[in-house]
Amino acid sequence: MNLFRHPHRVTYAECTLGNHIYYARFLDLFEKARGEFFRAIGTPFLSLQEEGILLPVLEADVRYAAPVRYDELVRVEVVPRIHGRLRMEFRYTVIGPCDDARVTGRTLHVATGLDERPRRLPPQLADAMAPWLQCPGGPATS
Amino acid sequence: MNLFRHPHRVTYAECTLGNHIYYARFLDLFEKARGEFFRAIGTPFLSLQEEGILLPVLEADVRYAAPVRYDELVRVEVVPRIHGRLRMEFRYTVIGPCDDARVTGRTLHVATGLDERPRRLPPQLADAMAPWLQCPGGPATS
Amino acid sequence: MNLFRHPHRVTYAECTLGNHIYYARFLDLFEKARGEFFRAIGTPFLSLQEEGILLPVLEADVRYAAPVRYDELVRVEVVPRIHGRLRMEFRYTVIGPCDDARVTGRTLHVATGLDERPRRLPPQLADAMAPWLQCPGGPATS
Amino acid sequence: MNLFRHPHRVTYAECTLGNHIYYARFLDLFEKARGEFFRAIGTPFLSLQEEGILLPVLEADVRYAAPVRYDELVRVEVVPRIHGRLRMEFRYTVIGPCDDARVTGRTLHVATGLDERPRRLPPQLADAMAPWLQCPGGPATS
Repeated sequence: MNLFRHPHRVTYAECTLGNHIYYARFLDLFEKARGEFFRAIGTPFLSLQEEGILLPVLEADVRYAAPVRYDELVRVEVVPRIHGRLRMEFRYTVIGPCDDARVTGRTLHVATGLDERPRRLPPQLADAMAPWLQCPGGPATS
Repeated sequence: MNLFRHPHRVTYAECTLGNHIYYARFLDLFEKARGEFFRAIGTPFLSLQEEGILLPVLEADVRYAAPVRYDELVRVEVVPRIHGRLRMEFRYTVIGPCDDARVTGRTLHVATGLDERPRRLPPQLADAMAPWLQCPGGPATS
Repeated sequence: MNLFRHPHRVTYAECTLGNHIYYARFLDLFEKARGEFFRAIGTPFLSLQEEGILLPVLEADVRYAAPVRYDELVRVEVVPRIHGRLRMEFRYTVIGPCDDARVTGRTLHVATGLDERPRRLPPQLADAMAPWLQCPGGPATS
Repeated sequence: MNLFRHPHRVTYAECTLGNHIYYARFLDLFEKARGEFFRAIGTPFLSLQEEGILLPVLEADVRYAAPVRYDELVRVEVVPRIHGRLRMEFRYTVIGPCDDARVTGRTLHVATGLDERPRRLPPQLADAMAPWLQCPGGPATS
């Protein structure tokens, strides 16, 4: 199984009082990492959109174990799963410079057309994701 | 049980492509509603902070049932719970103009001092919250 | 001349390190106040959009005289001007609880159709704005 | 004169209705590019802060010539100037994949201590910036 990692340097724009990333901004960061994942596997999100496929978020969860500070260089590990013909899940771990997991999260997506109605995930997308999918019995990352 | 409602008009700044609130911005909206809740019960968050109490978020979950569009006037219903001596939970429902629940969420907080170490919830805060607490056997709002 | 005022309570989401509103967020706040101005004069921005009129921003300027802190209740004063048949300008002053101007700004907009091409400002919009327009020789507010 | 360039891939989080970066987010992008500039010249902003130097923004201006779309890879060119002993200015140009300038901007900063009072710019910072400074009589980039 391949593991996708996205580096990120924390800006002032993301932080709030107390010098840490504001709790909502991790969902922005997950979107950024997810977008780079789709690009890395050769199916940029924009090309899916041009084929009429959207992947709106149904559920998002975040667990905050430790703060992430201004100017830290973290990495976001992204692990995808496919659920049936319509749904896709991503798990994220935000990891600090000393390999310490700070924040974990999950987003669940459903494939739809531009009309916002459910639509089957394109087979070529599932193929492109295959090397990155977590084995059902494999170790959890978050 | 009292029910706290916070009205909100959707701006461009919150929206993204496809004309709906970007998924992360609901956590900003929950913070805004939560802050107004603390003010409404007579214990503004800033006054807690001045007593050395912070309430960082440990967990946040969001469920997206339907999009919220630019310029819609929605209301956020906020239902608090207290768990033991240290933890507090809020449940949120974002409700559209036709009384339709669009998005629900939950945040779990722990009381800490300014040193980020756990600290008992102040009794006067629990007292102020009492009329707003959801009864354990009561109907869930989200 | 009428003067439009929009109240705003500062949230964590807007603040950054050092406990003040992050410099970019004032443009979000100006948009919020501008949207409420359009609503107040009876031509909500959404209704203009439904008539095929957009008002994209050509220029934005902000001057930061003093910080705005978490939980402060400020008001934004909004003064519009019309320049010719295509352009509209807004000047903003963010004023603290003690009537102290903290931040001032300006946005310049051009009317366009949905095709992003320039289009004449609708006469009914100019009429609705008339009571709020700053007299050319009047005192500047920012 | 060296020219600092910072690449940036546009995310959903930055965009709004109409599929372009929301006008306020360019100031976030300028901060990100500015932070990378300070790092590139060997004086990360955090190290200045640890020496008790802050560089709050006094003025910010943005000129929007053309929209920047979702998923575009743009670059931000950053040109610094030093004004006297206290002030520093940055000019930014956001340039699209076909070398087309889309948005330009400027931020003016004053050096202060942690007490928010003016403080002389450290000489080692001026030295580190020297190779990047725009010559007074040189061509403007924005």
